[in-house]
Formats: sequence, C-alpha cells, structure tokens
Amino acid sequence: MNTFGRNFRVTTFGESHGPALGAVIDGCPPGVEISEEDIDRALERRRPGVHPFSSQRREEDRVEILSGVYMGRTTGTPICLLVRNTDARPSDYGALADVFRPGHADYTYQEKYGTRDFRGGGRSSGRETVARVAAAAVAQKVLSGKGISIGSRIIEVHGATSPEGMEREIAEAARLGDSVGGVVEVTATGCPAGLGDPVFGKLDALVAMAMMSIGAVKGVEIGDGFAAARMRGSEHNDQMDGRGFLSNHAGGILGGISTGAEIVVRVAVKPTPSISREQRTVDTAGKERTISVTGRHDACIVPRIGPVAEAMLALVLVDALLGQEMIRSWTPGGGKPISTGRET
Amino acid sequence: MNTFGRNFRVTTFGESHGPALGAVIDGCPPGVEISEEDIDRALERRRPGVHPFSSQRREEDRVEILSGVYMGRTTGTPICLLVRNTDARPSDYGALADVFRPGHADYTYQEKYGTRDFRGGGRSSGRETVARVAAAAVAQKVLSGKGISIGSRIIEVHGATSPEGMEREIAEAARLGDSVGGVVEVTATGCPAGLGDPVFGKLDALVAMAMMSIGAVKGVEIGDGFAAARMRGSEHNDQMDGRGFLSNHAGGILGGISTGAEIVVRVAVKPTPSISREQRTVDTAGKERTISVTGRHDACIVPRIGPVAEAMLALVLVDALLGQEMIRSWTPGGGKPISTGRET
Amino acid sequence: MNTFGRNFRVTTFGESHGPALGAVIDGCPPGVEISEEDIDRALERRRPGVHPFSSQRREEDRVEILSGVYMGRTTGTPICLLVRNTDARPSDYGALADVFRPGHADYTYQEKYGTRDFRGGGRSSGRETVARVAAAAVAQKVLSGKGISIGSRIIEVHGATSPEGMEREIAEAARLGDSVGGVVEVTATGCPAGLGDPVFGKLDALVAMAMMSIGAVKGVEIGDGFAAARMRGSEHNDQMDGRGFLSNHAGGILGGISTGAEIVVRVAVKPTPSISREQRTVDTAGKERTISVTGRHDACIVPRIGPVAEAMLALVLVDALLGQEMIRSWTPGGGKPISTGRET
Amino acid sequence: MNTFGRNFRVTTFGESHGPALGAVIDGCPPGVEISEEDIDRALERRRPGVHPFSSQRREEDRVEILSGVYMGRTTGTPICLLVRNTDARPSDYGALADVFRPGHADYTYQEKYGTRDFRGGGRSSGRETVARVAAAAVAQKVLSGKGISIGSRIIEVHGATSPEGMEREIAEAARLGDSVGGVVEVTATGCPAGLGDPVFGKLDALVAMAMMSIGAVKGVEIGDGFAAARMRGSEHNDQMDGRGFLSNHAGGILGGISTGAEIVVRVAVKPTPSISREQRTVDTAGKERTISVTGRHDACIVPRIGPVAEAMLALVLVDALLGQEMIRSWTPGGGKPISTGRET
Repeated sequence: MNTFGRNFRVTTFGESHGPALGAVIDGCPPGVEISEEDIDRALERRRPGVHPFSSQRREEDRVEILSGVYMGRTTGTPICLLVRNTDARPSDYGALADVFRPGHADYTYQEKYGTRDFRGGGRSSGRETVARVAAAAVAQKVLSGKGISIGSRIIEVHGATSPEGMEREIAEAARLGDSVGGVVEVTATGCPAGLGDPVFGKLDALVAMAMMSIGAVKGVEIGDGFAAARMRGSEHNDQMDGRGFLSNHAGGILGGISTGAEIVVRVAVKPTPSISREQRTVDTAGKERTISVTGRHDACIVPRIGPVAEAMLALVLVDALLGQEMIRSWTPGGGKPISTGRET
Repeated sequence: MNTFGRNFRVTTFGESHGPALGAVIDGCPPGVEISEEDIDRALERRRPGVHPFSSQRREEDRVEILSGVYMGRTTGTPICLLVRNTDARPSDYGALADVFRPGHADYTYQEKYGTRDFRGGGRSSGRETVARVAAAAVAQKVLSGKGISIGSRIIEVHGATSPEGMEREIAEAARLGDSVGGVVEVTATGCPAGLGDPVFGKLDALVAMAMMSIGAVKGVEIGDGFAAARMRGSEHNDQMDGRGFLSNHAGGILGGISTGAEIVVRVAVKPTPSISREQRTVDTAGKERTISVTGRHDACIVPRIGPVAEAMLALVLVDALLGQEMIRSWTPGGGKPISTGRET
Repeated sequence: MNTFGRNFRVTTFGESHGPALGAVIDGCPPGVEISEEDIDRALERRRPGVHPFSSQRREEDRVEILSGVYMGRTTGTPICLLVRNTDARPSDYGALADVFRPGHADYTYQEKYGTRDFRGGGRSSGRETVARVAAAAVAQKVLSGKGISIGSRIIEVHGATSPEGMEREIAEAARLGDSVGGVVEVTATGCPAGLGDPVFGKLDALVAMAMMSIGAVKGVEIGDGFAAARMRGSEHNDQMDGRGFLSNHAGGILGGISTGAEIVVRVAVKPTPSISREQRTVDTAGKERTISVTGRHDACIVPRIGPVAEAMLALVLVDALLGQEMIRSWTPGGGKPISTGRET
Repeated sequence: MNTFGRNFRVTTFGESHGPALGAVIDGCPPGVEISEEDIDRALERRRPGVHPFSSQRREEDRVEILSGVYMGRTTGTPICLLVRNTDARPSDYGALADVFRPGHADYTYQEKYGTRDFRGGGRSSGRETVARVAAAAVAQKVLSGKGISIGSRIIEVHGATSPEGMEREIAEAARLGDSVGGVVEVTATGCPAGLGDPVFGKLDALVAMAMMSIGAVKGVEIGDGFAAARMRGSEHNDQMDGRGFLSNHAGGILGGISTGAEIVVRVAVKPTPSISREQRTVDTAGKERTISVTGRHDACIVPRIGPVAEAMLALVLVDALLGQEMIRSWTPGGGKPISTGRET
C-alpha cells in the first residue's frame, strides 16, 4: 500500500537512486491555489545540508506539476507531482548489493519480495519522503484556507534538551562514526472540533499510523502520552468551563475526535542505522560478514524528521476535514463553521 | 470508518446500552475450524469482574454466529458475530444526558454529529471492544494454524512495576474515588519474516493505528521505542550472524516489514476518566456544571486492555499474512513457507 | 468483498438457510428518521408470493435494528439490520449436497473455496438481496430528504411487452417446468447535476457494477444503451437550450457525472436456472448425473428484480451524493444546492 | 476516484492537453519481466491514425518507467509510467472555453467542480486511456505468465456486421460531418475457475464497472446478455458432462465467479459526440448558442475501443487472480493450480 488517505488520497512512487520520485493526489478539492514554487519551498525545508552534520547529498529538488492544476488552481482531477533524482550515485552502492546493513530494511525486503533494488535502500530510503512533503504542500494549502496551521520542534537529542546539548551530542556521535536519535513534537492549531471518526478511524489512530510510517520512528504519543500512564484521572482529565477546556492533557483529541484544542503529537526517532563503526552482519548467501557503512549519511536525522512529520499530520487532517464536510449538511447547525475550542 | 483491515476486514457495530454489539468478518479464508465456544472463551478474558477492582457490570457475554460458518468450519463468506447486551441499564445514564463528562468523548461526539447516544458512552464505550475481541478470536485461529501466537502482560501501573505495587496503586486510587493508568506490553512469536508493506502500509504503522484505536491508549512504541531516542546507532542496530539477529531492539520490524523475530509493542493507557471526585464541566447548553461520575466503573482499566491489545495485534497480523500470500507465488522460492528468524 | 460503497458503506452477511441475514451500514449521516416499519415496508415489496407464479417460500421478513439509531433517528454510528430466517428448510436441499445445479453458482463456489454451504445456494441465493433491500431503505430516506426518488418497471418478459403477454409467457414456462427471463427499467428523478467521479468512479460505471452484482443480471445499459450503437452522433447527442437538455439519450449521465436529467437504467435478467426439466450435470466426484430441480422456485424472477435494482441504484446515488458534499464547500457557489437540469 | 483495483491498484493522472499522462501501479508482484518497449507496443495498438477515418492527431506515445522496475524486472514497489503529451494543441480549444459541447462532459464537469480544464476535454478526453493501456500492458505480462490471454473484435458498426458494411457506414458518417457507434466483443481465454467474489465483488460486476468506465460505453453484457432475457432456462443453462460445460451461454461467469470457460463481454459504443454538423447548446453564462465541432476527430471510435476494453479486462482479471492467491493456501488442494474447465 503506497496510498495514504481515504478522501485526500496520496499515492507515492520512486526509489532513492531511480530516475524520479513523486506523488499522485486524488481527491483534492477544486479551486485551491498552488504553484511549483509553493511546493519547492516545502521541499527546501526537508533538504539535507540545511542543518549542520547532515548528509552531504545535494538534493536540489524541483517539482514538476504534471496534471490537475490549470491556470494556477486545482481542478479537482488528480495532481501528479514529479521530482527527478539529480544527484543519485547508484555506483556508490555496488558494494552493498549482496550484504544486509544492520538496522536497515535490506534483509526484510529480500525476505518479502525475494529481490530488491539495493541502490541506496531503494524504496525504503528516507529520500522517499520527498514525495510526501510535496503532496503535503498541497494539503497545507487546503488547511491554511480553513485556518489550520502546523509546526514542529526538536525537543530531545540523545537525552539532551538544550540546543547546545543537542549539537554536542550530534558532534560527538559524528566523531565516533556513530549516530544518535531524538524526539520531535508536532502540533496543529486552529483545528475545529469534530474531526476524526469513532472506533478504527480515530484521529489519533490515523496520526499514529501516519507518524509510524516514517522510516525512523519507533514511538508515537498524543498529549501526555506515556506520562499519562503515571497519572491519576483527576490529574489527566481536562475539565471545562464556559470558555472551553481548562487544560490539554488529551492533546486535542478525545474519543478519537478533535476537541478544538491544539493537537499535540510526539515521535521517537531512532539513531540513523548507517554508521561507519564496524558491525556484524550476513550476506544474501547467508555468509557472515562485517560492514562499515560509509558515504553521505546523517549522524542524526532528527532535524529532518520535523518537516516530514508535519507533512504526515497535514495529510491526516485534510483527510479528516474532507470526511467531516461529508456529514456537515446533516448535522443540526451544520451550516455554520464547526466551533473551535479555547486553546490552553 | 468502523472497518479494520484490507484483506481480513472486520466491521463492528453496536452501542454500550443498545440491543447488541457485533462484528462482520469479510475475507476470512475457508476451512478454518471455529465454534461459539472458542469465541466465548476469548470474551471471558476481557470480561469485567475477572480482575479485582474492575467494573461491577456483569457481562455474561455469549456470542451467536449468524453466518459464514457451516458444519464447524468457515466457508469463505462473511461471518457475523452477535453479542446481546444483557445487563444494560440505560436508566443509569439519564442524569448524564445533557452534561459532558471530562475525559470522555461526550463533547466531541456532540460537536461531530450534533447528536449522541448518551447511554453509557454509546459507541465510544469500552464495551465496544467486545466486538473486536470476538472477531479476533477467529483471526487467532487462522494465525495459530500458521504457528503464530500472541500474548500480553502489564508492565506498569501508575509507576509501579511489581504486582504488589500495582495492586496497591489501584486500591489507593479506588479509595480516593480516583483512577490510575499504566503500560501494557503485547508480543507475537512465530511470525514469519516478510509481513507488512513498505511506506504507508508498514507493519508497525498498522500496529500503531490498531493500538491507538483502543479508547484509552495515548501512546504506542515498537521494540525499544522512546528509549531508542536516547541510544546510539551502535547500541540500537540489531547485528546478525549466520543464525539470525543477535538482538531485537527493533521489536521484530525493520523498514515496516517483519524480521521473523518476536514482535514487541507497548501501549500507554490513560487513567479511567470516570471518577467520583468532583470535576468542573459544562452541559449541552454551555452552562457551567460540576460532575461526580458514579456507577460501575474500573479504578484501573489497564488489566482489561491486554486482551483487547492482543486482539488488535491479531487483526493486523492476519491481514498482513493474507496480503503476503497474494505475492508468494511470484517470489523466488515462494513455494516454501516464509523463513522465520532466530528469536533472542 | 461483501461491502458496497465508499462513503455510505453497506456490508451484508448471511446465507439463505442459515440463522439470519443482515447488513451493517457505516457512514450514514446523523439525524435521519428511520424505523423498523419503514424497512419492513421495503422488504414487503421484494417478498416472494406477492406476484403470481412466484416462489411459494413464505418470507415474513421482519427487521431488527441493532445499533446506530436512537430515539428514531440515526446517530452517525454503524447501523446493524438483522432479519432472521424463519421459513428455512435446509433438509429440502440434502439431495443437492453433492451435485452441481446447471446455471447456479454451485460449481464455481466449490472451485473457489474448496467447500460450500449447499443449503439453498447459501450466500449465492437470491435471498441474500433481503439485506440489500433493508440497507437501501435507509439510503432512500437520505435521498428522499434531498428530493431524489427511485422507481422501476418491467418492460419485457421472454420477448413480450404487454402485461397480458408477460403473464402468458410466465404461465407457459411454469406449465413446461421451465422458466423465462426479461428486462427491467430503473429510474431516478430529482437527482442533481454533478454526482459521480471522472474516470474509474463514473456514476454509470458504479451503476453497472451495482446492477450486475444482482445474481440473475447479465446485461446493463444506460439511456439508449445498445441502441446507441446503431445511432449517429446527430441523433444521440442531447442538445441544450436555455432551459436545459432537449432530449435524454444519455440517460442522465455524461462523462460519468449526472446531468440533472432523469437517470435511466435497464437490466437484462436471465431465466431462473432452477427448472424441473431434466438436465445433464456432474457431481462433486466428477461423475455424470441428471438433475430435475424441484421445490419452491419462481418460473420468472423478473418481477422480484425491480425492488432489488431500485435498492442498488439508491445505494449508488447516496454514496455519490455524500461524495459530492465533500467538495461542495470548495466549489464556487457551492453553498447553494446543486442545480437540477430540466427533465424531458 | 482515479484508482482501479483492490490488489493490483492502478491510479491514473493527466489531461489531454496538459504536460503528461500516466499511471502508478501499486501491488504488482515482484519478478515480472517488463520493458518500455513492451508498453510502447501496447500503446501503438490504441494510437489514432492506425485505422482509416480515425483522428489525425499524431500521438507518438513513448512511455518512461520511473520506478518499480530494476534490471528489467518488477521489484514489488509502485511502478510509475509516464507518457508526455507531444502533439497537444491547447490553442485549438480556445473557442470552446465557454461553450458546452453536446454529448461531452463539459457541462457536467462545470456543474461538479465549478471549474474545468477545457483544453480538449481535459481529463474526460479519450486520450486519458493512454494511461490505462500502459498500466494494462504490465497486467498482461502477469496474466500471460499464468496462461491467460485477452483479445477483442468489432462485431457491429451502425448496424453493419460485415467489414465492408462497417467501412461504408463510417465513410458515410464522415462525409455527412456526423459519426456512428458500434459494438465490440472482448474475450479472455485460459482463465482458471474460481476468480471473483460473491455478492458485490462479482467478477461480472467488476467487468461491467470496468467497461462502463470507458468514456463512450453505454451498455455492457456478459455471455448471452440481453438475449438471455428472451430465452428459457432450458436454453440458457449450461449443462455439464464429465469433460466440462456443454455450452457457454453464461460467458464464463456463474454466481460472479469464473467457470474456467472463455469469458465473453460485449460493449455498446455510442457515436462520437464531436461532429461538425451544427447543434444547439448553451454557454457558461446560460446563453443559447450553436456549435459545430471541427478539428481532429474520429467519425467512429469503435476501432479504438477494442484495445482499451482489453486493457480494462486485463486489470479486472489480474486483480481477481491476486485476490484468489490470498485464499489458495487454505483451500483443500489449494497447492495445485486451479482447474480450468473445458472451453466450448
């Protein structure tokens, strides 16, 4: 399944070192203003080399809109976004053709398909997120038209919580030929109450899926998250007065439906698996080998996860927003915009 | 969306205090042995009153198989499972008709639909999980036929990690008219390598969605999870030798695809929102009120989450297993059963 | 796949001679007035024995609403509709356990699943349509609230087009222990322009799927249908003046999207395969046999197809209507109800 | 919905006179041999100008495979196929910007989206089928590996059934500035028994949807189709002996599941709506106008429907084939290839 969403459906394609990556968006409303420059700006934020210590691969990504936009506005038909790979160096990966890199998807792809495109991880590469960010730039346009905005920040790197501490941890890992993980917080403000569906289509369930679908993410929490497991009901419940909620321990979602308060999500990012320190592994023939992964790799990909996590949250919210439009004309008072709770 | 899964599709229905709850399973393979007794046994495990301090509601749940099973075996057609509500007491909830209980979905349902069934939370009640557990009992039959087994254990209650400590925390909360949360670990063993899809259909993404779709769950992690954020790549990577993986920090999933090692998932459960301590809230007219939720409620629902989390993991795995069957005849060596990695 | 629809999703279950049949509707808007009596009335129309020469099976079908309706109105949560089989006589079918009835799905089910429920055709029985008609009764309530109404009429039986001729053909077939087919026309009026999606989700494509999913249907046409193949463009094109379309050769759908004119569909119904005349067949062991199918069978099921075809058209239209709501707030002038073309 | 299929999912994009058209295939099994030349050959068959009297637009379509294929074989990841528009002449359509062409989707797109890309019909153009044919070339590779082959023939043009008669009808229509319709038959041989699902996912229901999703198609029939409505059961039933079916009135599908006999489908194609004869219409402001559609148009598109109908049948069958693989390991004797009935 390379499609995300029920209503605003994004299908991505492309390998790290193939000719191109891209996305087809099906279900975008008509009349939304969008340009290639809007999307390029979003791609610029996820680009490596923007942060110190990041991969030296130069991705001068430029999108081409192949369909679904006419005279600067969406028409309601599918939007194909194409990004050519310009700095792919497949030959860099010849040495990895028959060996499984620890912490990577090499072994599992081989087990699943009986074959794999070994050039830079192929489809499992972080580069695949280019397509997500491009598609989400369109989603963000729809959301901002409804007053919803999304942001993110790094809150922890290898245990450090101050900017200086984080930089020190990354530098130290780089020096050792090693890598470090961290935690990113993503938030959405201006989101109306009423988004999300009960039971399996809960807004937080879809957010969790969206976040965990990012390669390096190993944990997701909403609002107080794991800290809630150490709280009492009287501490965790968000009480209300006539102006709205008095706190936001729930992170803006109750019973799987948005409350109108800020949506707060945190994701745990594992340390980059590509490290130059020697590791034990096997090759496709089952023979034991050692490996030292050199090349253009980030000692810490946490800074690059932010824009991707924002993209995924945008895709979840635009989908829920469209779903809620579907029933709005039947809800009493459905003509008026859905009310937004007070934020805390 | 009240349907879970792509291949083994489970649609649930029913409210806490309506006539019945149930599930329709579409896509179950033919020839699987299943009886009403098998399902009743699974329901027994999630029943309140089995654990001390749990809700006093007596749910003598008995399933009726209405279709899709003939002479003790599935036929491949949809299986409808029905559980009547026998101890529903809608009149208990009359007082709550117009007031929003803090920490519950009352407010968000009202905002979403402009109406709600206020009897015991209606569809957002924990009782809805009866349908999931019943459907998953069928899934477990399919899985156990392939050598896959699933289990769970409570690893923390309000910070306590020993059985005695946990019981003390629950008793103390009950005494205070309050409640506590905790953490549950769910695992699957015997799962072959190769399950799950790249990108959006990653096995861990689906597990995260499945777990977060359980009402009280506010966080999900796979393998080392949030701890991975504080690790170096050299610590977190699972190296291999000729016999398989040397560790299982990844929790059995790499690049969204199962490795063959044990699948390890942990979920954060929030404290039960229904507490008798007085809380501030508003009613449907927006007027400020105070509320003390009395009735048959658990001071800690963590013990009851285990069977539900197992059920959700079973649904994810059976779905992935069927998906992998689809491509098996095209994978080289696809005739043989998929290899299982060494567990650690 | 026992689910129909993307937005108003109907999942049906149940076998002809099992305990019950039913449907779960997921995605019905909240606030729609519906009662068990409304649904029973719809079921009454498809009941055998209403028309002369029809099956003597007595189906006193009574629906039970198990969920999703509270105080006479839908709540937005899944609606489970249950109809018990009260006049099932599985023992009638013992003789057919191991032989394939010509024109029936016996052979193909056996090939597909390696097993089958042979009692009265099991899931492939026409009785399965009880669930469709029940679910569509809810859809019709949604549609009629938007001014859309659906009807059908028999236009041909075994070549006869007059009521007397049709009755004569059926009587003659019955006398011979044989059966006859016919053609039914289904129409929808009041349908706004703009329903349906381009390309694969064309409204006529979904109508065709819906109609051909009825057991006995072997052909579907929209508007002029097969007659259009013998026309010139100048005859078939529907020209317009300031008041709307001047004709309706297109049957209310152009480019897969409704025009606002009456939607006109015709379906070809094959003769009932159950006949008492002796036929050649084989049994499950591959041995040659002859068979004479006796029991309670219609010599002509055409009269009973009308209500089912209406039901399927209702399901298609309610789904498209909800889909169009989703983008309505983005279309210029989307606040106003979608315009309806002049009908001809 | 611009996606077709559940298992072998094809998403198409692109407008007639935009930069490009294309398709993303998600769910193609790994290891299938495919080249750009294979796909170009399929595109060549649907190209205008191959048949006399066809559109003079020169479509020298060349596909580019952007992903999912490595070293000449599919990898299991999504396959993006891109075809650039090289002979688009959007300026030809300036005159049509504000007027609705009779028989075209102009009016309905405007009603649906409140906007439209008027260049050559945009997304509703027959040129959109380039993407379907390209994707189906991959599907055909999968099918031919399982011994299934698909073909088509024109059986009627404006009532004429002989080649000479058909050519005469087309020439006469061209001379008059008019157009004609016809009937195409599509068949599949080598298809195993057991494909397709009961109830809504019937193989014939999916075939009907697939065919009716082709722009000009107004009717679909399987096997005897509408002729079955004029038959008796004793004539229409396909009896069996020990070697298989004695006839194929059912067209290879019973109860929605393939019988193993040849699958036979016929589609009614309406006359091309673009004619130079003057017609009445209105413009976007509602003002009455007359229109004469000149430019590069076919007087008869029936010859070009064949390859597209074959493509759609291939997509339906590959999807059903993959679906059946999913349950094959559970069906008794499921290890062996599914048996194929005798063809007649």
